[in-house]
Amino acid sequence: MAKKYVYSFGGGKADGNESMKNLLGGKGANLAEMAGHKDLRLPVPPGFTLTTEVCTYYYENKRTYPKTLKEEVQKALEKVEKLMERKFGDPVNPLLVSVRSGARKSMPGMMETVLNVGLTEKTISGLVKQSGGNGRFVYDAYRRLIMMYSDVVMEKAAGIEPKDSESGIRKQLERVMDAMKEQKGYKSDIDLTETDLKVLCGQFKVKIKEVLGKEFPDDHMQQLWGGIGAVFASWNGKRAISYRRIEGIPDAWGTAVNVQTMVFGNMGSDSATGVAFSRNPGNGENGFYGEYLINAQGEDVVAGIRTPGPINEYSKSENNKDHVTLEKTMPEIYKQLCDFRTRLEKHYRDMQDIEFTIEKGRLFMLQCRVGKRNGPAAVRIAMDMVKEKLIKKEEAVMRVTPSQMDELLHPIIDPKAEAANKPLAKGLPAGPGGANGQIVFSAFDAVEQKKQGKNLILVREETNPEDVEGMRAAEAILTARGGMTSHAALVARGWGKCCIVGCASLHIDYDKKTLSVDGKTFKEGDWLTLNGTKGTVYAGKLPMMDASEENRILNDFLKICGSVKKLGIRTNADTPEDAQKALQFGAEGIGLFRTEHMFYGKNSDQALFLLRKMIVSKTKEEREKALNELFPFVKKDIKGTLQAMDGFPVVIRLLDPPLHEFVPRDAEKLQMLAQELNISMEELALRADGLHESNPMMGHRGVRLGITYPEVSSMQIRAILEAAAELLKEGKKPYPEVMIPVVCDVKELNDQLAIAKGIYAEVLKKYGLKKIKHMFGTMIEIPRAAVLADRLAETAQFFSFGTNDLTQMGFGFSRDDIGGFLPDYISKGILPEDPFQSIDQEGIGELIKMGIQRGRKTNKTLEVGICGEHGGEPRSVEFCHRIGMNYVSCSPFRVPIAKLAAAQAALKDGKKKK
Amino acid sequence: MAKKYVYSFGGGKADGNESMKNLLGGKGANLAEMAGHKDLRLPVPPGFTLTTEVCTYYYENKRTYPKTLKEEVQKALEKVEKLMERKFGDPVNPLLVSVRSGARKSMPGMMETVLNVGLTEKTISGLVKQSGGNGRFVYDAYRRLIMMYSDVVMEKAAGIEPKDSESGIRKQLERVMDAMKEQKGYKSDIDLTETDLKVLCGQFKVKIKEVLGKEFPDDHMQQLWGGIGAVFASWNGKRAISYRRIEGIPDAWGTAVNVQTMVFGNMGSDSATGVAFSRNPGNGENGFYGEYLINAQGEDVVAGIRTPGPINEYSKSENNKDHVTLEKTMPEIYKQLCDFRTRLEKHYRDMQDIEFTIEKGRLFMLQCRVGKRNGPAAVRIAMDMVKEKLIKKEEAVMRVTPSQMDELLHPIIDPKAEAANKPLAKGLPAGPGGANGQIVFSAFDAVEQKKQGKNLILVREETNPEDVEGMRAAEAILTARGGMTSHAALVARGWGKCCIVGCASLHIDYDKKTLSVDGKTFKEGDWLTLNGTKGTVYAGKLPMMDASEENRILNDFLKICGSVKKLGIRTNADTPEDAQKALQFGAEGIGLFRTEHMFYGKNSDQALFLLRKMIVSKTKEEREKALNELFPFVKKDIKGTLQAMDGFPVVIRLLDPPLHEFVPRDAEKLQMLAQELNISMEELALRADGLHESNPMMGHRGVRLGITYPEVSSMQIRAILEAAAELLKEGKKPYPEVMIPVVCDVKELNDQLAIAKGIYAEVLKKYGLKKIKHMFGTMIEIPRAAVLADRLAETAQFFSFGTNDLTQMGFGFSRDDIGGFLPDYISKGILPEDPFQSIDQEGIGELIKMGIQRGRKTNKTLEVGICGEHGGEPRSVEFCHRIGMNYVSCSPFRVPIAKLAAAQAALKDGKKKK
Repeated sequence: MAKKYVYSFGGGKADGNESMKNLLGGKGANLAEMAGHKDLRLPVPPGFTLTTEVCTYYYENKRTYPKTLKEEVQKALEKVEKLMERKFGDPVNPLLVSVRSGARKSMPGMMETVLNVGLTEKTISGLVKQSGGNGRFVYDAYRRLIMMYSDVVMEKAAGIEPKDSESGIRKQLERVMDAMKEQKGYKSDIDLTETDLKVLCGQFKVKIKEVLGKEFPDDHMQQLWGGIGAVFASWNGKRAISYRRIEGIPDAWGTAVNVQTMVFGNMGSDSATGVAFSRNPGNGENGFYGEYLINAQGEDVVAGIRTPGPINEYSKSENNKDHVTLEKTMPEIYKQLCDFRTRLEKHYRDMQDIEFTIEKGRLFMLQCRVGKRNGPAAVRIAMDMVKEKLIKKEEAVMRVTPSQMDELLHPIIDPKAEAANKPLAKGLPAGPGGANGQIVFSAFDAVEQKKQGKNLILVREETNPEDVEGMRAAEAILTARGGMTSHAALVARGWGKCCIVGCASLHIDYDKKTLSVDGKTFKEGDWLTLNGTKGTVYAGKLPMMDASEENRILNDFLKICGSVKKLGIRTNADTPEDAQKALQFGAEGIGLFRTEHMFYGKNSDQALFLLRKMIVSKTKEEREKALNELFPFVKKDIKGTLQAMDGFPVVIRLLDPPLHEFVPRDAEKLQMLAQELNISMEELALRADGLHESNPMMGHRGVRLGITYPEVSSMQIRAILEAAAELLKEGKKPYPEVMIPVVCDVKELNDQLAIAKGIYAEVLKKYGLKKIKHMFGTMIEIPRAAVLADRLAETAQFFSFGTNDLTQMGFGFSRDDIGGFLPDYISKGILPEDPFQSIDQEGIGELIKMGIQRGRKTNKTLEVGICGEHGGEPRSVEFCHRIGMNYVSCSPFRVPIAKLAAAQAALKDGKKKK
Repeated sequence: MAKKYVYSFGGGKADGNESMKNLLGGKGANLAEMAGHKDLRLPVPPGFTLTTEVCTYYYENKRTYPKTLKEEVQKALEKVEKLMERKFGDPVNPLLVSVRSGARKSMPGMMETVLNVGLTEKTISGLVKQSGGNGRFVYDAYRRLIMMYSDVVMEKAAGIEPKDSESGIRKQLERVMDAMKEQKGYKSDIDLTETDLKVLCGQFKVKIKEVLGKEFPDDHMQQLWGGIGAVFASWNGKRAISYRRIEGIPDAWGTAVNVQTMVFGNMGSDSATGVAFSRNPGNGENGFYGEYLINAQGEDVVAGIRTPGPINEYSKSENNKDHVTLEKTMPEIYKQLCDFRTRLEKHYRDMQDIEFTIEKGRLFMLQCRVGKRNGPAAVRIAMDMVKEKLIKKEEAVMRVTPSQMDELLHPIIDPKAEAANKPLAKGLPAGPGGANGQIVFSAFDAVEQKKQGKNLILVREETNPEDVEGMRAAEAILTARGGMTSHAALVARGWGKCCIVGCASLHIDYDKKTLSVDGKTFKEGDWLTLNGTKGTVYAGKLPMMDASEENRILNDFLKICGSVKKLGIRTNADTPEDAQKALQFGAEGIGLFRTEHMFYGKNSDQALFLLRKMIVSKTKEEREKALNELFPFVKKDIKGTLQAMDGFPVVIRLLDPPLHEFVPRDAEKLQMLAQELNISMEELALRADGLHESNPMMGHRGVRLGITYPEVSSMQIRAILEAAAELLKEGKKPYPEVMIPVVCDVKELNDQLAIAKGIYAEVLKKYGLKKIKHMFGTMIEIPRAAVLADRLAETAQFFSFGTNDLTQMGFGFSRDDIGGFLPDYISKGILPEDPFQSIDQEGIGELIKMGIQRGRKTNKTLEVGICGEHGGEPRSVEFCHRIGMNYVSCSPFRVPIAKLAAAQAALKDGKKKK
C-alpha cells in the first residue's frame, strides 16, 4: 500500500489524532482530535492535513510532490465538499478553504497562510448568495485573497526579492488602496463600498501583472496548489530558519499543511465569532468565561474596534455589562457551546481556551488549546481539578509555574496599566514585586512622612546602614548607584521589599530635593511606580494588584508540593520576624543567618557602634574590649532566631564582609567613634583608610578575619553556643549549625574548629550541660574549596554552597561591575542569561557537582545545601535536586516558589526513572 | 645468630658503610664509610655505633635494652682500647669518649650530646700525663663533663622538670661559676686557673647533690650508660618531636648512638684543629682551601676569638696572610691531608667540607660532608668535575640549585655586609637582586641626575606610566604603596630591575623632598641599599657583588641543561630589547607579549595619549578615530618584537587590564585630553569616573573589552597580522600566536575568532599572500575556563595558563590585598607559602591539570604553556613538566633558572620512570 500523505477530519470523524503531532503537526493533530475523538466529535470546519512527510519529500526531491499526492488531495477535498454540501470552484454554492502551516512545535507567525482560497470571478456570485446578498463582504474577501496570494505565493514563494522594503507587491497594493481612500476622502477601510472594492480588485490585478509580470490566477485549483506550495516553501524562509536556530528545532522536522473549510462569522446577524475559557483565567473560578461579536470575523475581536459582548451573565464586566449575552441571543448555540466546554475539559483535563465561529446559525469550533492563566487562577484551577478528580495531586503540582507562584506573593503593577506606560528609567531588579508611592529623599523624611500615612518611595544615591529605618518605612527603594550586592539590594531582598538599584540615569539633587531623569524633573511628593521584578521605573501612580493575601488554597497547594518534593527548603533569615514569616511559608529551617545583618536592623544603633569600635581597633586589647561589649547583643539576636525556629536547624554564618563596609561615612558618627576610642580624627581616618582594599571581594573577609583575629570568631561562637545552652535550659530544642565562610583550605577550618571546641567545653561547663546539639561546617564559595572538597569534608559536617561568590570567582565576574559588559554578553548570545540569576549549570554547576562528589567521598553523612540567591530560582532548584543536595535555602518570600520547583523536580525525576 | 646491635669503626676497618643510614644513622654511616671503605680508610677516631634498632627496642620495651647489648658494647669498647692503646677508666692511660646522637636524617641541635665521658677523679691524673702535664686543660674538661652530664643525663633524661627557666641545674652551676669569677675579679672563663677549676668541680658536685638529690657518678661505665640512655631519651624530647612534626620525620625511625674516642686539638703546640674545603667554595676553583688553629678545640675555630691561619698559600687572605701555614708548620700532616682530600673527592665525587684534629702530631679526620658553596662556585665545580670525568653531564645539572643560579644573574648585596646591617624597612620583593643608590623623589629628577652619572634609587608613593623614563634611569625603585601587581612591580620585573613595593612604613614628603621611616629622616641624595629579592631596605651604601658578567662557564652549563630538558622555555617580553636579552639567555620564543606594556615604554608618550583618547571615547566613532591613529604605533611595536624573535613563536596577548588603569591623574595631561576630544573637564571626569569599578580584577577587562568594543580587538589583530605580513615580504619568518585573555566561555573565543578570520582574509588580500603562519588561542586564567577547557579547545589552538589570575580567582585572593592576612596564614601554617610565589599544586594545580586533560581530549594537537610569573619559579617549573605542558614562559632574567629547573625535572622524571 502506498504511503498515506493526506489525513481528513470533520463530520465527527478523523483519520488522525492528538498523538500524531510528528506527522500532522500540532495544529493538524489538534483538529483531528477535536473532530474525531469519540468523547469530543466537535463540529470543526472539515478539512484535511498534508503530512510533514510531504514537506520532507518536497525538499529531498527538488521541490516536487509524491506522485500519489494529487489524487489523495482530490479525494479529501471531495469528502469536505460532501460534509459542507458545497463544491470547491462551484459558481452556485462554492466551498472556500484556508491553507495554513502547522509544524510539530508551534512557530507563531514564522510561516505563511492563505485565506479565502477558491474565490474567483466565477465563484463570487455563489458566495454573495451564501452570504444572503452581502456583496461588500464578498468583494472585501476577494481583495484580501488577492493581496495575500500575490504577496505570499506569487512573490515570496517564487523567490522574488523586492529591491527595497517599499517595492514589495503588498506595499504597492496598499498604496493603490490608500490612493482610492484619499481620492474618496475615506478615513478607514470600513468606508470602502462594494463598488469601491470591486474597482480595487481590478486595479490590484493590473498592478500585479505590471510588477510581477504574471496574472493573478483566477482558477480555484491553481490557487489551492499555489497556497500549498507557498506554505512548504515558507518552512525554509529566512525568518523560519532563524527561529529554528534559536529554539533548537531541527530542519528535518518539516511542516504539515492544513486545508480547511472557511467559515465566516460576518455573514450577517445570524453569524458571530468568539473566544472563551472553560474557566475564569483571571481568578480560576469554575465559570464559563468568554466574549463574542455578532457579524464579525475573529480578527475583529482581537482588533478591539468593537467591544465584544459577554457570552453569559458570569462573563459580564464594567465594560460590557449592557451588552446582550450569547446565552440570550442564541440560546441553542450557547447550550451547545456549554456542552462542548464540558467535553473538552473532561477530555483534556485542563482549562481550555476556545475559538468558535457561528456561520448562519451553525456553530463551528475553530481551535482549542490549554488556556493561559495568571498565578491565582493557576493554583485554584489545579486544586479544584484535584477535587473534581479530573487530575491527580502530582499533576496539580505540574500545573503551576514558579513565576505564577511568584505572582501570588507580592503586590504587582496592574499588567494592563504597565503595558500602556513607557518606563521612565531602568535599573537592576533588586527586590521583587511592584510598588507606588511619593518621592522622599532621606531616611529621616521617610520615617516622618510615613507617620502621616503616606506611601513612600525612598530615592537615594545609595544607601548605608544608617538609612535602615527609612528603608523600612518606604514602600520601595530606588538608588542611582550600587549593584546587586549593594546595601540596598541585600536589605531589600531579605525583606522581600520592592527595590531597584544602580539606576544610572537618575540625577539626584539632595539640596533642591529633586530628581531629574530623561529630561524630566520630579520633586519630593511626586508619585513614582516601580516594578522591582523587572527593574523598571514609571512616572506617576500606576494601579496595583494585590495577590498576596492569606490564601487557604495556596496553603493546600503548598502542602501537596511539600508531600511530593525530596529537597529540604530552608530560608535565609536574619531576624526572628523573618524566621516567623518563613515558617508560615513552610520553611524547614534556616539555611543562612548572616551575623552582619543584625547591624543593619531595627534598633541596631548601639550594636553597630560597638561593631565599628571593634573594627577600627588597632590592638588586640582594644578589639577584645569592644567584642566583650558587643557579645550580649549578638547572643540576644541569635537566641531570638534560634527560638523562633525551635526544633529546626539554623545555619549561622560567622562575620563575612570586608570590615571597611561598616566604617561610618557620617562626620558626626566618626566624631563619636574617635571620642569613644580616645583617638584623633586623623588617627581614625588613618585606621579606616588602612581597611581600604583594591578588590574587597577577594580581600580580607570571611574566615580570613577569623584567622587574623581569632577573638572575633571566639566571640561569635560563644554567643551561638550560649544562646543554645540558655534555650536548652528553657526546655527548647535549639539546633545551630556554625558555618565558616570564604574557606579555601581545610586548615582554615581546623584552626576555627579548635577555637570552637575550646569554647564548647567551656559553655557545657558553665551551663552544666552534657551536650548541645550543633554542627560545624563550611560554605563552599571559593573555587579552590570545591576542588579540595574531599579535604574540607574531613573536618566539615556540612557544606553550604555560596553560589553568589562561587559565580563571581568562577567566572571572574564582579557582580557590582558586570553592568559594563553583561548586557553585551547576553545580547550577543555569548551567555544565555545572567549567571547570578540562574546557576550556570555547565561551568559553575560542574564545580558544585565536583564539590559534592568529592565531599561525600570522605564524609558519607555530609549535609549539603545551597544558600546563594539561586536557592529560590526554579531552574537552579531543579539542578540542586538533580545533583543530590539535601536542601536549598532562599529568602522567606521565595520559599513557596522553591517548594514548588523542588516538587516539580522530584516529579520530573521520578518520570525519568520510570 | 643474635641480632647485631653494635657496629665498630676505626683502624682502617668498619662493620658498616654509607649505605646503612637507616640502621646506623647518617653520622654513623658516614664515619663507617670514612673509616672502612677501601678507597678511603681515613684515620677517624675509633668508636662504635649503637643502631637505631636499639632505639626502637628501647621504646617498645619500657626503656630497656636488648639482653646482648651490654656484651656487644663491651667488645666494641675493647676494640677501641686496642686501637688507641688506651683503656676506658684506666687511671694511667685513660680513654675518653663522646656520646652523640645520629638519626637517619640530620636533626641539628635537636638531640643531646655528652663529651669527655670516662673522666673521673680516678682517671684525671692519667689524662694530665697524656696532655703533657696540662692540668688546667684536664680540669676544664672535667667541669665541662660535670655541667653537661648533670644537665643532660641527671636532669633532662631523668624527666625532672625545673620550676622555671632559672632553676635548671645548668643555670645553677653557671651561677656558681659566675660567683667564682666575680669573687676573683675575672672577666672571662679563660682567666680561671687550674686551681679555680678544681675548686669549681667540687662546688659543682655539692650543688648537684643539693638540687637533684643525687651524686654525680664518678664511675666511667656509669657515665657511658648514662650518656647512651640520655641520647635515646632525647629522641622523644619536646624539641625533637616538634622538629619531626615540621619536617615530616616518622617517630618510628629512632636515632642511633655514636660512641667515639675523644681526640683533643688543644693538647699543646703539636696539636691543632681545622676545617677545609676540597675546592674553593667562594668561586669553585680547584684549590684546597682551609683554616687551622694550633692548640685549639673545634669550637675555638667557630667562636672566632683567635684568627685561624691558612692551611696553605692558596688559602691566604687579607686577614690571615701573616700567619704560618699548616703546610709549613706540619708538612707531613699537610701532605697526609692533601692525600685525604684527593681520596675523598674521588670517592664522593663532589666538593667536600672536612673537619680534622691533630692530637699530639697525629691526624684524625672527624667529619666530611658535601660542602656548601655559592652560585658561581656551584656552576664552576660542576663543570670542572665533568671535565675531570668525576661526574656525568646529567649529574652536573643536579649539582646547581636554582637559587644558586639566580645569584649569577643579578648583582647582590655582599652577604657579609648584609648580615651585619639591620633592615630599615621591609616591603614586597617586586624585582630581584640588590642595588644601592642616592634617593631621588621624582622621575624627572632621576632622568636629570642620571646624566651626572649618579646611582639613583627612585622613591615614590606609587608609580604610574608617566614615571617610566625615571624608572629606567634609576638603579632601583622603592614605593610606599601598591602590591605585586602594581605598575612599579610589573615594570620592574619585566626589566629584571631591583624593586620593592608596598613598603608601608615609609612616609614621603614630596615638597620637602624627605623620606621618614622608623624615626629616621632621609633627604634627596642620601644613600639607600635595597635587596629586591627579599624586600629589605638598608640605610647607607652597602657594598655590592656582581656575579652577572658574561660567563663562558655558565653558558656551557646552560647548554647541558638545554640538552637535557624536555620543556620549552619562552620568555615574557614586551620590547625588542627584552626579546634580544632573552634570546641571549636561550629563550625559545615569547610566551607573553603584553600589548599594554608598549604604553609604559620608552618614547611611549604619543601612543599613551592616543590610548587614553580611545579609552575615554564615548561613541563608537570617537573610539574608532582614536584606534586608527593608534594603529601604526601598535603595528610598529609588534613588528619589532616579531623581527627580534625571527623564526620563534611570539604569543601576543590582546589588551588585558581594566581601562581605567590608563586614565591620567596629572591635571595637565587631563587638560590636553579634554582639548583633544573637545569636551569639558567635567565631562572628562564623568567619563573617567564611569570606568571606575568596585573589583576591577573581576571587572570589564580582557576579552570582555573585545566583546563590548570589537573595534579594539580588530585594530590589534590587524596590527599583528600586518606586521607579520610585512616581515614575510621582507624574507623573515614571523610566527605570531594571537592570545585572548580573561576568557570564560568558548563563545567569547568564537566571537573574537570571527573577527580575526575576517581580518586575516583582508590582510592576505592586501599583501598578496597565501598564508601567514599564526595560531589563535586563549589564556586559561578564569576557573570556569579550566572547567570547560574541552569546549575552549574546540576553538583554541593553544592554551596558556595565566596562573597569577588563576590563583587570584581560584583562592579568592586579591594579590593587592593579601597583605592583610597572608602573613598570618603562613605563620600559622595554614598555607605552606605564598601561592603567588610557587604554584599551589594541590588546589590551583588540580585546576590546571583538569584544564590540560580536558583540553587535549577535544584537541589532540593543543599547545599548552604557562605565562604567569610562576613560569620562572623552580618548583612550579617542575610541576609544569610533570603535568605535561609544552613550555613555560618567564621574564628574561629567569630564563636560565627555568631552564635549569626544567632540566632537573626531566632528570628526576627519567629516574622515576626507571
